[in-house]
Amino acid sequence: MHILILGAAGMVGRKLTERLAHEGTLRGQTITKATLHDVVEPKAPAHAPFACTTVASDYSLPGEAEKLLADKPDVIFHLAAIVSGQAEQDFDLGYRINCDGVWQLFEAIRAIHTATSGAYHPRVVFTSSIAVFGAPFPPAIGDEFFTTPLTSYGTQKAIGELLLADYTRKGFFDGIGIRLPTICVRPGTPNAAASGFFSNIIREPLNGLEAVLPVAETVRHWHASPRSAVGFLVHAAEIAGEIVGPRRNLSMPGLSCTVGEQIEALRKVAGENVVARIKRVPDPAIIKIVSGWAERCDPKRAIELGFKAESTFEEIIRVHIEDELGGVIR
Amino acid sequence: MHILILGAAGMVGRKLTERLAHEGTLRGQTITKATLHDVVEPKAPAHAPFACTTVASDYSLPGEAEKLLADKPDVIFHLAAIVSGQAEQDFDLGYRINCDGVWQLFEAIRAIHTATSGAYHPRVVFTSSIAVFGAPFPPAIGDEFFTTPLTSYGTQKAIGELLLADYTRKGFFDGIGIRLPTICVRPGTPNAAASGFFSNIIREPLNGLEAVLPVAETVRHWHASPRSAVGFLVHAAEIAGEIVGPRRNLSMPGLSCTVGEQIEALRKVAGENVVARIKRVPDPAIIKIVSGWAERCDPKRAIELGFKAESTFEEIIRVHIEDELGGVIR
Repeated sequence: MHILILGAAGMVGRKLTERLAHEGTLRGQTITKATLHDVVEPKAPAHAPFACTTVASDYSLPGEAEKLLADKPDVIFHLAAIVSGQAEQDFDLGYRINCDGVWQLFEAIRAIHTATSGAYHPRVVFTSSIAVFGAPFPPAIGDEFFTTPLTSYGTQKAIGELLLADYTRKGFFDGIGIRLPTICVRPGTPNAAASGFFSNIIREPLNGLEAVLPVAETVRHWHASPRSAVGFLVHAAEIAGEIVGPRRNLSMPGLSCTVGEQIEALRKVAGENVVARIKRVPDPAIIKIVSGWAERCDPKRAIELGFKAESTFEEIIRVHIEDELGGVIR
Repeated sequence: MHILILGAAGMVGRKLTERLAHEGTLRGQTITKATLHDVVEPKAPAHAPFACTTVASDYSLPGEAEKLLADKPDVIFHLAAIVSGQAEQDFDLGYRINCDGVWQLFEAIRAIHTATSGAYHPRVVFTSSIAVFGAPFPPAIGDEFFTTPLTSYGTQKAIGELLLADYTRKGFFDGIGIRLPTICVRPGTPNAAASGFFSNIIREPLNGLEAVLPVAETVRHWHASPRSAVGFLVHAAEIAGEIVGPRRNLSMPGLSCTVGEQIEALRKVAGENVVARIKRVPDPAIIKIVSGWAERCDPKRAIELGFKAESTFEEIIRVHIEDELGGVIR
């Protein structure tokens, strides 16, 4: 079993690599090799029971996808993306990586499929996003709600989903697209992303630091932990395509809660002195951006298909404390 | 007012050209020039009150879209497409024309928009199709139903819709996408299209000829006349973008009826001796294809926005007799 991870240097890519190194198997088979790719060279995990090759390249350039596929990986995890804010600022870059890059990758897989008379037929796990949806929303976004993105990033992801489904339908590969909720609690340091505060207000106070809350406590959003995101990816790699059927793109399960409920959960888990480190500094720009975001999905299909996420925000905080803080609150 | 029509040699393109030549105006302005483009050279209408330039080229080739836009047309009608059956058989050709060609056209418009510091901002009318939808369907396909096409053609149209909306949102042009119902009654001779019989069973008997019905009379489908299709295009060129809002792709109104209801309408309009020319010859291949098609839409938004179609199949037949047979039944 040979695995290719595109976007392996990102937060979710690193955690996925670590989990695969820990388990050593996928789809019931021993992993013998992993190719870890990103635009900067990913780190190979320290104690992986399989060979790791790390590659840094721009996979949207001619010939690069072909190189990555030369060893015919059995499972391809596609996590590489220009993120939402950057894709909105740099229109050409976003379309080149998120749209043309994905299409060229799919074309390169198809070329090997054709050259091998159909023998090469890998599982492709494509990471999409709830950004494929655009306001106004119903109270919960059902599995048959249309994709009317309000960002170029969301548009590019929706195009990737359509290509994935058509290339799968034609039999060129076996694709599953998963729409991730906002990943919370993101480890690391605060960043400039408009969604950063959802994680900052939990992570920073747990580290003994202050965090800024730029929106009202009534703001509601759709979350899953990094651990759940990795679980979605592994399950998407393992699920039988026939069970999923022709509708290959699935909104992942998550947890809908308000910022107030996040804070309440933090209070229960870590106490009042930790919550006191959250400072309220309203930011009209962030308030406006966040008002267009999805508040809740109703991902019946994904749940029926066995995808699992946290059911309370307390659980999300405890996962963060276990996975990032060694179980210890400062 | 300068008009560019891509796909001007097709049935709907010719009828649109004729209507514009007859009216001489669009968006309240006098049409001074029309560029008529197709892969084969379109015919200029005989008595157009404006200058007509006809061009034959493959607009997906490098530099061709730029040539068509050199005179900065104010309204661009995009009707050019590899049709469903051919796009399914020739995967590369379908994606090249229906997906990459559309994207290159939009990019060429954006380049002029940028070069003119935003002064160039044409209305783009993009012709999509109910093929963006894929079975299983609800009893009527609402305006917020998702696009899960079951053909490459439908996938390519859905991608065009997403690009249209994003380029419009970014302000590069002012796009409206319209999803046409099956156009019935198509003039001309019977063709090999799986949907051909919907028109054949009306047109051929009215011409004194036999027609083959390959499916059961219970088959239900979604229709509009060629005259309505032209009306949709003109209205889409004229409607104010602000009224449409960010959701720029609209399912057009149409008429849902069974084949039995089509035949009953023909009987009322033309009599028993005409209906007797329909021969029932079941074709399992066509029965299977048609079973995956949309039966009915519920296009509330388009109707509210002033798009109009026939409300009975008798009306559709009378439009055909007026527009194609000089008002005379043979």
